[in-house]
Amino acid sequence: MSQQKPVEYVSAAPEVKAVFDDIKATRGVPDVNNFWKYIAQHPPTLERTWGSLKDIMADGALDPLVKELIYVAVSVTNNCGYCVASHTAGARRAGMTDEMFGELLAVVGMANETNRLAVGYRVPIDPAFE
Amino acid sequence: MSQQKPVEYVSAAPEVKAVFDDIKATRGVPDVNNFWKYIAQHPPTLERTWGSLKDIMADGALDPLVKELIYVAVSVTNNCGYCVASHTAGARRAGMTDEMFGELLAVVGMANETNRLAVGYRVPIDPAFE
Amino acid sequence: MSQQKPVEYVSAAPEVKAVFDDIKATRGVPDVNNFWKYIAQHPPTLERTWGSLKDIMADGALDPLVKELIYVAVSVTNNCGYCVASHTAGARRAGMTDEMFGELLAVVGMANETNRLAVGYRVPIDPAFE
Amino acid sequence: MSQQKPVEYVSAAPEVKAVFDDIKATRGVPDVNNFWKYIAQHPPTLERTWGSLKDIMADGALDPLVKELIYVAVSVTNNCGYCVASHTAGARRAGMTDEMFGELLAVVGMANETNRLAVGYRVPIDPAFE
Amino acid sequence: MSQQKPVEYVSAAPEVKAVFDDIKATRGVPDVNNFWKYIAQHPPTLERTWGSLKDIMADGALDPLVKELIYVAVSVTNNCGYCVASHTAGARRAGMTDEMFGELLAVVGMANETNRLAVGYRVPIDPAFE
Amino acid sequence: MSQQKPVEYVSAAPEVKAVFDDIKATRGVPDVNNFWKYIAQHPPTLERTWGSLKDIMADGALDPLVKELIYVAVSVTNNCGYCVASHTAGARRAGMTDEMFGELLAVVGMANETNRLAVGYRVPIDPAFE
Repeated sequence: MSQQKPVEYVSAAPEVKAVFDDIKATRGVPDVNNFWKYIAQHPPTLERTWGSLKDIMADGALDPLVKELIYVAVSVTNNCGYCVASHTAGARRAGMTDEMFGELLAVVGMANETNRLAVGYRVPIDPAFE
Repeated sequence: MSQQKPVEYVSAAPEVKAVFDDIKATRGVPDVNNFWKYIAQHPPTLERTWGSLKDIMADGALDPLVKELIYVAVSVTNNCGYCVASHTAGARRAGMTDEMFGELLAVVGMANETNRLAVGYRVPIDPAFE
Repeated sequence: MSQQKPVEYVSAAPEVKAVFDDIKATRGVPDVNNFWKYIAQHPPTLERTWGSLKDIMADGALDPLVKELIYVAVSVTNNCGYCVASHTAGARRAGMTDEMFGELLAVVGMANETNRLAVGYRVPIDPAFE
Repeated sequence: MSQQKPVEYVSAAPEVKAVFDDIKATRGVPDVNNFWKYIAQHPPTLERTWGSLKDIMADGALDPLVKELIYVAVSVTNNCGYCVASHTAGARRAGMTDEMFGELLAVVGMANETNRLAVGYRVPIDPAFE
Repeated sequence: MSQQKPVEYVSAAPEVKAVFDDIKATRGVPDVNNFWKYIAQHPPTLERTWGSLKDIMADGALDPLVKELIYVAVSVTNNCGYCVASHTAGARRAGMTDEMFGELLAVVGMANETNRLAVGYRVPIDPAFE
Repeated sequence: MSQQKPVEYVSAAPEVKAVFDDIKATRGVPDVNNFWKYIAQHPPTLERTWGSLKDIMADGALDPLVKELIYVAVSVTNNCGYCVASHTAGARRAGMTDEMFGELLAVVGMANETNRLAVGYRVPIDPAFE
């Protein structure tokens, strides 16, 4: 019933192939991962998503490792299994050590806890933070 | 009807005062912010939360600025108004510039978008990520 | 621009009045709270929601206080300000003490933390839990 | 340890059978899907949920296809695997094309992104929207 | 402490003015709403977000009203106050009636309920949905 | 690529063994479940999490069964598969019957529904709840 299927390079339309080629060249990988193959079912989403991601994750005021750590933090908070797996791998490629990973998850867990304490106790924002 | 009220230093029990004193000394601030005053209504929560937070946010494999950025990422994803305000302020104190803040939110927004694309397209995890 | 407005008893349609009357009689209160006045803009939603809530929150295998604690736990996790305020008040009416409230939020906070640790570490379900 | 088991028609209590029969007749299907078999473990939940769903998803000011698209949007945002699978199938039965599905997920992804930008930048509500 | 401030047209940089002009022309409005003024603090986010939104919300296989309804559904599920206010207004401009709005929220509420029933009962995906 | 692996007792460091021993003794079980084995990859997280959980889940103003019900409510709302499985098992060990479980999920589902109705209708907090 479900019609979601990955788009493989050999049978892809030219505009999809072009995006796949750019992903492979930018990342220096032989093939794109499943995320790209699945969203390629809707080429405008593929093109826009890759274009945005390439810009956003590039080295800037924050370095790529920090950006991947933030990506993992969001993905864990949203409980997205695919995203946790792929961005944890991405963070390791960018230099994340076991110790960094342990600290990352500790911060993510703590933030999720204190977020709820702030909501449950209905804490008003301090004037200094406005 | 609501009975949540901040606990002020002058009227606090000794074990609450001790935690407030440690927060002020650790952070070099003249008073604790509302979060601590509200959760002080339940002293075991105050003590445990401060103890955990102090350990987790200390300098380690990840530096304090990176930890605050991660905290903001989680708080934005959870839509916790108090937490976004207080940890954005905390990140700025730790050195976050306007440009870093702009990139942080760009990554958080993008991660929230691609998390849903991965879920909606039901993307299976690549063997390389297992 | 927004057209959400509370429906007050005096100007309500008969089927809305009937629900308001039942809420007031069931709870022994002189007026319904804002939640009911706002969803009364769509009478089928008012009728269905009150009918379901009345059944679900009635004394059963779980007593009304425990049900209100669970309601607060969900509302805090979802960060719904109105719901936290109204169900905290409801839990207090049902007998929640300050100490119970403190323990409730401690459990909610901890559950939100360990939920993310389980996701971040990608913990597989133990055979004993299947 | 887990005791969740599907309730099959042949061994179901009469009030469960009656709901199953109504689902099958309403939808023109030979059997109910797993969702109904599992919640049938608590007959009041089965009866109330089917009663509400049947009313809410009926043709009205919004047609059934639009309602299924909204259902998918919520399920993707909540990351509910079962719900994404079943309501994507439901939307296709109601007429959703591949192109509609691609646009649906694009909107869902974008909304999740801009929701976080609005929260992160702490955007105040415009007077025109109040 | 917080440094988030809206960027007003008169004092905006040329690339920001260009985006504001395009928003105003596309929507036929005299000024952009707060969302755009706040994210304009980071011009690359403004440009990318507007570019994506303009593409995604355009008339396509789904019409603009349906897209706005989906946007409201996601924003309500995420509990984003600003987004609920602005996209409810947007949906009304696109033709949403009171009755449509009532049905929209009924579906959103129901989907959020059944999403949790599916998770709580740990319902396995039917083979027909794979 | 992923390096998450469970830490087994025989090969664990002394401080990890000490925590595992305390979990086993406190719960009267022959082995710890996967959650503890996975977070043991970061010993400070293991020690802190167990210390907090042991305190929070102990008998107090709320009894252990009620605390487990709250834990399940949060885990279902967050859609954490591991946590739903492990805490449903925990609640059953603490005395949860099938009927209690049915009522628990009914409340959790309803709370998730009304949370969104309150947000969608933008219901202002009643003065009585402030």
